[in-house]
Amino acid sequence: MDYVHISPREARRLIREGAYTAQTSGMCAGYAQANLAVLPAEYAYDFLLFTQRNPKSCPVLEVSDRGSRQLTLIAPGADIARDIPKYRLYREGVLEGEYTDMSAFWQDDLVSFLIGCSFSFESELLAAEVSVRHIEENRNVPMYVTNIECVPAGIFHGKMVVSMRPLPPEQVIRAVTITASMPRVHGAPVHIGDPALIGIRDIDKPDFGDRVTIRSGEIPVFWACGVTPQSVIKTAKPRIAITHAPGHMLITDVKNTALKN
Amino acid sequence: MDYVHISPREARRLIREGAYTAQTSGMCAGYAQANLAVLPAEYAYDFLLFTQRNPKSCPVLEVSDRGSRQLTLIAPGADIARDIPKYRLYREGVLEGEYTDMSAFWQDDLVSFLIGCSFSFESELLAAEVSVRHIEENRNVPMYVTNIECVPAGIFHGKMVVSMRPLPPEQVIRAVTITASMPRVHGAPVHIGDPALIGIRDIDKPDFGDRVTIRSGEIPVFWACGVTPQSVIKTAKPRIAITHAPGHMLITDVKNTALKN
Repeated sequence: MDYVHISPREARRLIREGAYTAQTSGMCAGYAQANLAVLPAEYAYDFLLFTQRNPKSCPVLEVSDRGSRQLTLIAPGADIARDIPKYRLYREGVLEGEYTDMSAFWQDDLVSFLIGCSFSFESELLAAEVSVRHIEENRNVPMYVTNIECVPAGIFHGKMVVSMRPLPPEQVIRAVTITASMPRVHGAPVHIGDPALIGIRDIDKPDFGDRVTIRSGEIPVFWACGVTPQSVIKTAKPRIAITHAPGHMLITDVKNTALKN
Repeated sequence: MDYVHISPREARRLIREGAYTAQTSGMCAGYAQANLAVLPAEYAYDFLLFTQRNPKSCPVLEVSDRGSRQLTLIAPGADIARDIPKYRLYREGVLEGEYTDMSAFWQDDLVSFLIGCSFSFESELLAAEVSVRHIEENRNVPMYVTNIECVPAGIFHGKMVVSMRPLPPEQVIRAVTITASMPRVHGAPVHIGDPALIGIRDIDKPDFGDRVTIRSGEIPVFWACGVTPQSVIKTAKPRIAITHAPGHMLITDVKNTALKN
């Protein structure tokens, strides 16, 4: 089956039927994928305010209406509770389990936040011949908890999580300008160079994802990461929260190019 | 007194003391000014979601904490209830009065939304020698209620309000690119050309502000306008709402140039 060239609607159907349960990286070339964070309505205002105050980590693409499993803007016809290959359920900030269908857990007071994903800018980087090392090495992107405090909002607070892509110096500027033009999928980098300046002790030991090769002379470039909200949810300990499992995203009907300014 | 070159902090002090009560257009050259919308906490989630869904009309610069009259990002030290020259108080969507000090009306459950203002991009347009007719003619910008539906959120819904600036054809593209680079102050235009296509019947009869001259061959260019939230508040009829009076803005410590991408 050619998952690269099927439509987002077809991909979501396969996922909903349980015919596809793997990571979504590379599926439906050209279409944006989204991070998911679902919270009870009592936390929704604080979380929405957190995203407003931290737009680089949490660029919101769409917020569902309370209790609704539907999206109207980025994926009409999608079922938020079933169209992601793997979900995570947290209670009081503790991971309770991973599931392929959240229907049984859905509640009338849940609000879903769909957040932009770096997959979108990676396809633009590759198109501009900027190297994306973890794709070259067929690994997950390395992610690190930094010492950069997110701007708190209500119960939500915590450190920014970043993803890292090592680049030869001559590609750094192009990577900045390309991603700066895509603020809805994390935008420009938050740091370039010395990992210690943002509190990363050992670049070879990412907190999430996989280590990648940094070649001699290459510069590590750091972007705000969509794992930040998951990390913040663990700290805030809401009574229940649902997220996607890392790498298992919602495939939207929005083209990556439509996320440019 | 030279109000053009005083600091934002000094301007806010003069306003707080009642020494300045006029419109703020042209004060503190180079610094961004902000629209204000204040609502009780019970409406804050719906309104924040409305701004997220309508970022061109309602580009949020900062949201206060509940009950707080302080801002931490765009104007540290400001008092939201006193540092704007003229406020409007609405009850159930009806204008009750205009005041220069809202301290007596403040409640512990109020949340303040500070929204980007077109004054910021006008200074960039002028710097690039794009004409801004209402400034040339010393009038208020003409504003129109369109037939463009805002994306609704909870109780908030309504038509987008736009501001219009007529431009000679050779300046239109520059105006688009300059404002497109400033999404936090309304961004690129929403319409160029025929007013009827967005439901404007008579370009010489703006719904708010003043009529301006449109010279032969000039093209009307329309931007989403910060009056949209006020218009939407009138429709939603919250039990109480406070806004700035048109043209009487909060002067922030943020430079216009810092609002570029």
